[in-house]
Amino acid sequence: MILDIINKKRLGKELSYREIDYFFNGYLEGEIADYQMSSLLMAICINGMTDEEIFSLTKVFVDSGEVLDFSDIEGIKVDKHSTGGIGDKTTLIIAPIVASLGIPVIKMSGRGLGYTGGTIDKLESIPGFRINLKDREIEKQVKEIGVVITGQTRDLAPMDKVIYALRDVTATVSSIPLIASSIMSKKIASGADKILIDVKYGNGALLKTKEEAKELSKLMVKIGEVYGREVRTMLSDMNTPLGRCVGNSLEVLEAIDVLKGKDDSSNLFNLCVDLASEMVSMGKEIPEEEAKKLVIESIDSGKAFKKFEELVNHQEGDLKGIKVSDNTIKVRSTKSGEITKINALELGKLSLLLGAGKVKKTDKIDYSVGIKLNKLVGNKVEKGDVLMTLYVNKNTPDAKIDDIFTIE
Amino acid sequence: MILDIINKKRLGKELSYREIDYFFNGYLEGEIADYQMSSLLMAICINGMTDEEIFSLTKVFVDSGEVLDFSDIEGIKVDKHSTGGIGDKTTLIIAPIVASLGIPVIKMSGRGLGYTGGTIDKLESIPGFRINLKDREIEKQVKEIGVVITGQTRDLAPMDKVIYALRDVTATVSSIPLIASSIMSKKIASGADKILIDVKYGNGALLKTKEEAKELSKLMVKIGEVYGREVRTMLSDMNTPLGRCVGNSLEVLEAIDVLKGKDDSSNLFNLCVDLASEMVSMGKEIPEEEAKKLVIESIDSGKAFKKFEELVNHQEGDLKGIKVSDNTIKVRSTKSGEITKINALELGKLSLLLGAGKVKKTDKIDYSVGIKLNKLVGNKVEKGDVLMTLYVNKNTPDAKIDDIFTIE
Repeated sequence: MILDIINKKRLGKELSYREIDYFFNGYLEGEIADYQMSSLLMAICINGMTDEEIFSLTKVFVDSGEVLDFSDIEGIKVDKHSTGGIGDKTTLIIAPIVASLGIPVIKMSGRGLGYTGGTIDKLESIPGFRINLKDREIEKQVKEIGVVITGQTRDLAPMDKVIYALRDVTATVSSIPLIASSIMSKKIASGADKILIDVKYGNGALLKTKEEAKELSKLMVKIGEVYGREVRTMLSDMNTPLGRCVGNSLEVLEAIDVLKGKDDSSNLFNLCVDLASEMVSMGKEIPEEEAKKLVIESIDSGKAFKKFEELVNHQEGDLKGIKVSDNTIKVRSTKSGEITKINALELGKLSLLLGAGKVKKTDKIDYSVGIKLNKLVGNKVEKGDVLMTLYVNKNTPDAKIDDIFTIE
Repeated sequence: MILDIINKKRLGKELSYREIDYFFNGYLEGEIADYQMSSLLMAICINGMTDEEIFSLTKVFVDSGEVLDFSDIEGIKVDKHSTGGIGDKTTLIIAPIVASLGIPVIKMSGRGLGYTGGTIDKLESIPGFRINLKDREIEKQVKEIGVVITGQTRDLAPMDKVIYALRDVTATVSSIPLIASSIMSKKIASGADKILIDVKYGNGALLKTKEEAKELSKLMVKIGEVYGREVRTMLSDMNTPLGRCVGNSLEVLEAIDVLKGKDDSSNLFNLCVDLASEMVSMGKEIPEEEAKKLVIESIDSGKAFKKFEELVNHQEGDLKGIKVSDNTIKVRSTKSGEITKINALELGKLSLLLGAGKVKKTDKIDYSVGIKLNKLVGNKVEKGDVLMTLYVNKNTPDAKIDDIFTIE
């Protein structure tokens, strides 16, 4: 019974596999309404889930679709996932690097969650880029060029996709059990041999503290064990936005700069090198130091960017067609000093107000809007210097400079 | 911002008046979706509200419509409210009794909440009965016959009505702050001078324990003080269903029996006499003992039932048209002994399964179905005796006898 299940979780009791299966499949089949699911999700957010409940939910998600099998593609397939942060475009950079070194990369990505953008949203800002490949197309492309980035196919953990969209607009995103089930169900269904997860924490991440990040890491490793997959995690700070840009088209252009080795001054470059090195180390079973040399060489030689171009061409994207809004607002400093902090969360909120993300399920993303930081943490500024540039379209909200930049 | 507000309550923080006003009015105006409101409501259910938040929400509810003014109707207008229980049809009985003694009764009632039925649902089982009177009609009728029972008019706390319907189907009913705001906003808007509240507790009530009932009582008295209205409360046990019948038409017929003095053997009769006496005591400012004599006299003389008939006639109802399903199932005892307990909650669930209440917002109530108890607590039964009769229509669920009756 629908209300009994919600009530049980409201009171903090454990749901059985049967109850979780009934409720989530009932939602998928339209028997349980949006407002009932969001009510249960909020109860889960506040009251949590036991390990058993988390395994049950992951199983329900995995079983809602196919489990892919890429065992006839040679090599150890290492998947990488980031829990998402403000300005996180690492997938766009890492996937081509790793692929350029001969490790097959099949990356299934998601959409934006709350204030944080999703890889698929970013790729959609490249005109023509096909983000919904079929299983056969994925396999064909990996065999041909060694890399693919796609949204979940219709049959792959379809339930997670539906739940993901609802959580996004009901403030039920920040739940460690829900995040763990969501991430791991996709990873398990997408058939990788090993999985590297970049778990972010800080005000610009889904998880605010390092403790939560550790908790999520442990849970994901446990779920991996249930399914016999090796899971490694990397904890990274997300109090400061990653890189210089927030907003879909802007982030793709920034990723290209990093791939070309044109921009190695922001925190983005180092994180990408570390993550790619870990993946190469796992995939080739070599020490990380050795892997890191290969990664740097791939960028410097232009192999990494060439692989990115191949990827975009194969998925029918037109890099020249990327559109950034012509309307810009330069936000200038009202004082002089050194930038000691750039608040990632506030930047994410501003980007949402500009139209770069979704507030409601039915909202449309404006790919051409966003924010470019002209100054980064550690930079000295004079009064009147441009701190950031807003690329605007329909909405021109006031930027609360003092909430974003700390200048001392 | 919608998500900020939900997140704040998810984390157990206090919302400001401005935030509550924005969110609830935004929902009423369609800017905030059902699934967002239910997410916030669940967060409120679990994390609670401060007194200030409760006053804010009550104010938002009250201000969403008109506040009625019946000051030109003579006499002290005493309103009565029950927090609702399984088989609670007291309003149908008390309102005519009190009115028959010259105290004007303007009763605004609600619909079913969770497992418990609502007075308005019960009245709708009388064919033709108009439950949506306009303010002018209410005033006219009270002046003519001294009593009216109606649903909330469109302009009276309209927001509460909308929220009430959503809570009903999202398991967000059992929240003391939400119950307090909902009840008191209606009572304040409906213009009574004094208010008597029957706060029920037990497994068949919204509140499970006497402690919760006390907490709710205190809150309502506090809200009353903010608005300068005297509020008195009466705590009553709801582990056992009230009376013999559960289900809309059946309960109206039972109310008629009690009003006619034909059935004074169940717990329903005594509770009605107590509540009516308290109201008469408040309205006439006389001792309760004296009031009780008047109440008994009204029933015995037939004045109470005559007033009920007047009420139904004025609101265009046809008592002869009340329909109870012809299909009955007699549930017999599988053992002999004395009935020591009848589980009100299980009876309410069974009634819901029969179709007498709503599971989903869009469900329709079947007025003709329900349950009649052939035996009450304290009765001795032999194996094979009829314990209860189910009046069924579309749904014929299995009655779990042992969950409902304890026979020792």
